[in-house]
Amino acid sequence: MNDKKIILASNNAHKIEEIKDIFSEYEILSLKDIGFFEDIEENGKTFLDNAFIKAKTVHDYLKTKNIEAIVLADDSGLCVDALNGEPGVFSARYASNHGDSVENRKKLLHNLKNIKERTAHFVCILVKMYPNGEWVSAEGKTFGEITKEELGDKSFGYDCIFYSYDLNKTFGQATKDEKNSISHRSRALSKIKL
Amino acid sequence: MNDKKIILASNNAHKIEEIKDIFSEYEILSLKDIGFFEDIEENGKTFLDNAFIKAKTVHDYLKTKNIEAIVLADDSGLCVDALNGEPGVFSARYASNHGDSVENRKKLLHNLKNIKERTAHFVCILVKMYPNGEWVSAEGKTFGEITKEELGDKSFGYDCIFYSYDLNKTFGQATKDEKNSISHRSRALSKIKL
Repeated sequence: MNDKKIILASNNAHKIEEIKDIFSEYEILSLKDIGFFEDIEENGKTFLDNAFIKAKTVHDYLKTKNIEAIVLADDSGLCVDALNGEPGVFSARYASNHGDSVENRKKLLHNLKNIKERTAHFVCILVKMYPNGEWVSAEGKTFGEITKEELGDKSFGYDCIFYSYDLNKTFGQATKDEKNSISHRSRALSKIKL
Repeated sequence: MNDKKIILASNNAHKIEEIKDIFSEYEILSLKDIGFFEDIEENGKTFLDNAFIKAKTVHDYLKTKNIEAIVLADDSGLCVDALNGEPGVFSARYASNHGDSVENRKKLLHNLKNIKERTAHFVCILVKMYPNGEWVSAEGKTFGEITKEELGDKSFGYDCIFYSYDLNKTFGQATKDEKNSISHRSRALSKIKL
């Protein structure tokens, strides 16, 4: 087995880019790269459930193809305290099933209209599954609050309306390196990096 | 925070000893050591559920005492293929709630009487929880089969009726170092060692 090759259970270009930047000593392949074009139904109740569903689906697919490789699955989202943790596992499809970031942000700002308590955190759950089925999983969080308007031009997900307490600006105003230094994703990755 | 101090969410002497041997560069404290004497009800459906219940309970207790430390919880058991994964999460209390190893082994040998297919594996799930609530978790497995009688004088749990494919003897016949080199627990620990 090539220990430096990791199949990422995702076709989300932003997620792939972030993980490639953080996990730079590994060769990261997306689902497209290995010829997997199905949609994986993420119907779990928690981030952990969904990350396991993705990891296991791709792990089983690799078995059928006799490919021996490590699978990395990521499930992540934004949890807003005043909304009891919403959008949570529905972060990517908050406004609709289309996963439109503009619409999702619009809905969130609308739901927080006139709400003063705007604290929130991003969560990332990773599951790294080995060819023999064993796994390691980790959680990373990053804290901040939801702004009243979009700030910054980087529009990945909720980044431009999430004011980071670590960076004192929104993720949309931060450089890639700044965000990676304190993001939920990098904090989860740092725990399982081998 | 003392990064080298770990509270183990267990009072099981064998488990504590194994983890101390494997995690030797850390100071491992048991629940008794920190003055926690309650029984934690392990009513989860899976090893992962139970490990999280233990980790979270102790994590919350430490918060009330203003102790900042890493918690390590372990849930583990034996899964026998011919018994659809039993005793599984009930491994420690298979015969009764008293957790008597002799009775548990007797019951398992009885239930496998006349059964030829005796393959089994030990599973260990670890949850390491940080003071801020973030966590990392890992699974380790080790494969073998259930013998027809007890072999070896080391009687921790099911060790003397588990013939290890890695060691070509039962865990009850193996030295501590031999067992630690391939055990489910050490394989889980190796994934989250920092």
